[in-house]
Amino acid sequence: MPTRLDRDEQLLVGVIDTLLRGVGQVMLQNNPITGLLFLVGIFINSYEYGLTALLGLVVATLAAYLLGADRTLIRNGQFGFNGVLTGIALSVFLQWDWPVAAYIILGAIVSTIVMMGLAKLLISWDMAPLTAPFVLTAWLLLFALYQFGQLHPTKLIGAMPVHPGAAIQTGLQEAAGGDGVAGLTAANLANALFRGVAEVFLQDNLWTGVVFVIAILVNSRVCFGFALLGSALGGLTALVLGGDGVTIYHGLYGFNAVLTGIALGGLFLALNWCSTIYALIGTIFTAIVFAAIAVALSPIGMPALTAPFVLTTWVFLLPMAGFRALERVSVTECASTKSLVRLRTSESTRAE
Amino acid sequence: MPTRLDRDEQLLVGVIDTLLRGVGQVMLQNNPITGLLFLVGIFINSYEYGLTALLGLVVATLAAYLLGADRTLIRNGQFGFNGVLTGIALSVFLQWDWPVAAYIILGAIVSTIVMMGLAKLLISWDMAPLTAPFVLTAWLLLFALYQFGQLHPTKLIGAMPVHPGAAIQTGLQEAAGGDGVAGLTAANLANALFRGVAEVFLQDNLWTGVVFVIAILVNSRVCFGFALLGSALGGLTALVLGGDGVTIYHGLYGFNAVLTGIALGGLFLALNWCSTIYALIGTIFTAIVFAAIAVALSPIGMPALTAPFVLTTWVFLLPMAGFRALERVSVTECASTKSLVRLRTSESTRAE
Amino acid sequence: MPTRLDRDEQLLVGVIDTLLRGVGQVMLQNNPITGLLFLVGIFINSYEYGLTALLGLVVATLAAYLLGADRTLIRNGQFGFNGVLTGIALSVFLQWDWPVAAYIILGAIVSTIVMMGLAKLLISWDMAPLTAPFVLTAWLLLFALYQFGQLHPTKLIGAMPVHPGAAIQTGLQEAAGGDGVAGLTAANLANALFRGVAEVFLQDNLWTGVVFVIAILVNSRVCFGFALLGSALGGLTALVLGGDGVTIYHGLYGFNAVLTGIALGGLFLALNWCSTIYALIGTIFTAIVFAAIAVALSPIGMPALTAPFVLTTWVFLLPMAGFRALERVSVTECASTKSLVRLRTSESTRAE
Repeated sequence: MPTRLDRDEQLLVGVIDTLLRGVGQVMLQNNPITGLLFLVGIFINSYEYGLTALLGLVVATLAAYLLGADRTLIRNGQFGFNGVLTGIALSVFLQWDWPVAAYIILGAIVSTIVMMGLAKLLISWDMAPLTAPFVLTAWLLLFALYQFGQLHPTKLIGAMPVHPGAAIQTGLQEAAGGDGVAGLTAANLANALFRGVAEVFLQDNLWTGVVFVIAILVNSRVCFGFALLGSALGGLTALVLGGDGVTIYHGLYGFNAVLTGIALGGLFLALNWCSTIYALIGTIFTAIVFAAIAVALSPIGMPALTAPFVLTTWVFLLPMAGFRALERVSVTECASTKSLVRLRTSESTRAE
Repeated sequence: MPTRLDRDEQLLVGVIDTLLRGVGQVMLQNNPITGLLFLVGIFINSYEYGLTALLGLVVATLAAYLLGADRTLIRNGQFGFNGVLTGIALSVFLQWDWPVAAYIILGAIVSTIVMMGLAKLLISWDMAPLTAPFVLTAWLLLFALYQFGQLHPTKLIGAMPVHPGAAIQTGLQEAAGGDGVAGLTAANLANALFRGVAEVFLQDNLWTGVVFVIAILVNSRVCFGFALLGSALGGLTALVLGGDGVTIYHGLYGFNAVLTGIALGGLFLALNWCSTIYALIGTIFTAIVFAAIAVALSPIGMPALTAPFVLTTWVFLLPMAGFRALERVSVTECASTKSLVRLRTSESTRAE
Repeated sequence: MPTRLDRDEQLLVGVIDTLLRGVGQVMLQNNPITGLLFLVGIFINSYEYGLTALLGLVVATLAAYLLGADRTLIRNGQFGFNGVLTGIALSVFLQWDWPVAAYIILGAIVSTIVMMGLAKLLISWDMAPLTAPFVLTAWLLLFALYQFGQLHPTKLIGAMPVHPGAAIQTGLQEAAGGDGVAGLTAANLANALFRGVAEVFLQDNLWTGVVFVIAILVNSRVCFGFALLGSALGGLTALVLGGDGVTIYHGLYGFNAVLTGIALGGLFLALNWCSTIYALIGTIFTAIVFAAIAVALSPIGMPALTAPFVLTTWVFLLPMAGFRALERVSVTECASTKSLVRLRTSESTRAE
């Protein structure tokens, strides 16, 4: 017979496990140790981003609990990861001030609402919402900032009119202020590779990226491999096509491709030669979609976030059943997302 | 045995009842008296807008009849409200000229086509099209005007480049030309509150707003309460975040929140404390979405119309079955929309 | 018992037939002779566009084969037409260079992936993807070009800020460099009419248009009639509303209306007076949607492609079952698209 203390301890362990899985799910890793290492990586880069990530995480998860979402879904971290990303994004693109805290709380709640809605909608086509709830919520909250005097954007926000044929600086190098040499040096390539993984959490830091790949390796060697391949191919695609060298150095062509690589290569396709090629084409296309969405948003100067990953992965997963050369791993069989099966009928969520 | 005259009278009463319900449905009120009072409110502000509202209403309803839409749907005003709004919007944003009349007729017909399509599509997820047919149709017709010399925009249309950190005038006050003092005076707050309701029909008039809230009260006390709460919270959200004072004064942060309040608070959720908080979060978020869509459209200078209401309400209704703390009122049980159940199977519409 | 040579010949004939149907399907004509004549029309205008059309066609079809798509679908040209259009569009809007060839190959592969995904998604609502896979793929690849120094846009690309009330040159005439007189001359009207058909393949050439209408006539008199009616009504709508005369002369208001005319008038509606009027309203609306999408994309200077056709045709087909005055021809009964029925259950595609 468990004592009161035992039950309190169990509850605490359950809560911490839930929250850490929520962090892990940002890269589709349903593993609390991976989640913990992701948090370590963020705090290495910035305490502020770490704290806003935790704020978004707790609020989004708590909102799911208070609204009465299915417990198994909550326990698998399905409502945490969009909150984490919303919290970080709002503190990266807005100068810190108390209204930003209110904004993050509202955004985390809405991300949970969008998550449940999209999950119910997409399960009919055996698709997961991925980070679409974060993208939709953060876009709406960020777009609005031009209209509100209490919100002050950081220098990362700003309209950039497009000019066909404008010169592009293609040398791989750090942004102004860095003292490294330009070009295809080992240091520059390593930065592009690992910052590409770090930027999944919007962290522009080489060592954060190193911690992140270790965190993925803890959970899955296949995901680890495809994360690195994704970052490499994303950056390489931009290099070959003559993309901006500073953008590549800071991993911005990599992070969406990392996620596409994990989703297509590591999780939702049975691994064979054909699916590997398919996944790699997906990561290459993701880098181009990143550029496309950046251009589409350039008149209002807004960031692409992880929309290129979501769009490309949906496009590449949707037709699967029609292609005999590929074998799909159902969303409801994959360890990261199998709890979504509970949304197939409304009874399951009401039965508990 | 009815005489010929009796039958003619019955027909006339039926037609008028149908048309008035179409006006009422703009705010999801399936009530001819409410619709009549809405018309009165519009004519108080402007004969021109009243007449174009009637033109859109009659054409959209007639198109539904000629295309052979389900009679019960027509009788509940489901094909009128998008026509009303299309008619008003095109005369508000375009200078009057005969091509505008042709444009309204085309827009009203297309709004009926979009309405039937969306209604059939959304009924599978127990969702209603709301005013999406109006938004889609009016956006396409308005966007095009830059390309057509026979159409002349009013001063409300014009590209507005965004500048991060540009100063925003936050004092609550009437647009240039008004003689009231700026700030949180009772008069300014009353204007923001009631114009917020009036702007649902794009009417920038305090007294029109007063007539509109009475019209809602005739049909439903709950909707009346949530309409006022929505307008108040929409404006308040903008005030707190430092939004433009003139925009708030003229009710532009209110009208989408009014509709969200009615839909979430008054109709599609069983009323309790939890659903009330949920609906109020929805109205607050609607005000932010209004700012976001305004920014997204600023490079081409187009209005948000009621898109913020449609987007927010869909987002907040879609996940409902997954949240045990909330109890959904089905679209097919709600008095305003229950006739949509007839679209569930194509037989019903062909059986009559 | 067939000899080896016989079987090789059969295979060759099968491949050629498949590819030619893929070209024909650009205008929903499932006929190899029509496809051959379309190719002739393109080569009359430009060898370069003809060769890039063939590159896109072969790669998209081969991708479908290698991914294991249903053979019947491939044989009906369902995977060729988006590749053809992607190939042409990328060579029309990008200056030729070897990276463009790689871009076309990637685009053709992705167009096949999007085609299968959309086809599976839309068959539930008895809708076909039309040219949406081409539009989505080509848009993403074209938007991205501003970010990549190895890709050089042609003069057709460039941001065009909108100005309400800017003067529009409405005289019907050839672009600068042409020596024809302005106005409603027979020559100018013939150019607008036939270039409207030619521009479906992005070919700005009168004689290409003449060959195209003959090609359609070979397969279907009804489609021939609605193609010409569509081009005429598209241009006429722009003329009446005061659209730019040069744009009209070069058929840009016509080509989407041609496709809408064929789809609504010639294929997916049982022909009667009511459906004819419905189809013609659709072609008129398509011309306005063309202007609307051009405006929406003007801040980044991108082309509307065939998005106006896709959007309008979906909007006009979706509600069909709800309108008793119209009789729908199911996608799975129409000669051009009936092979899509095989996507209704995943078994069919795996059973072969």
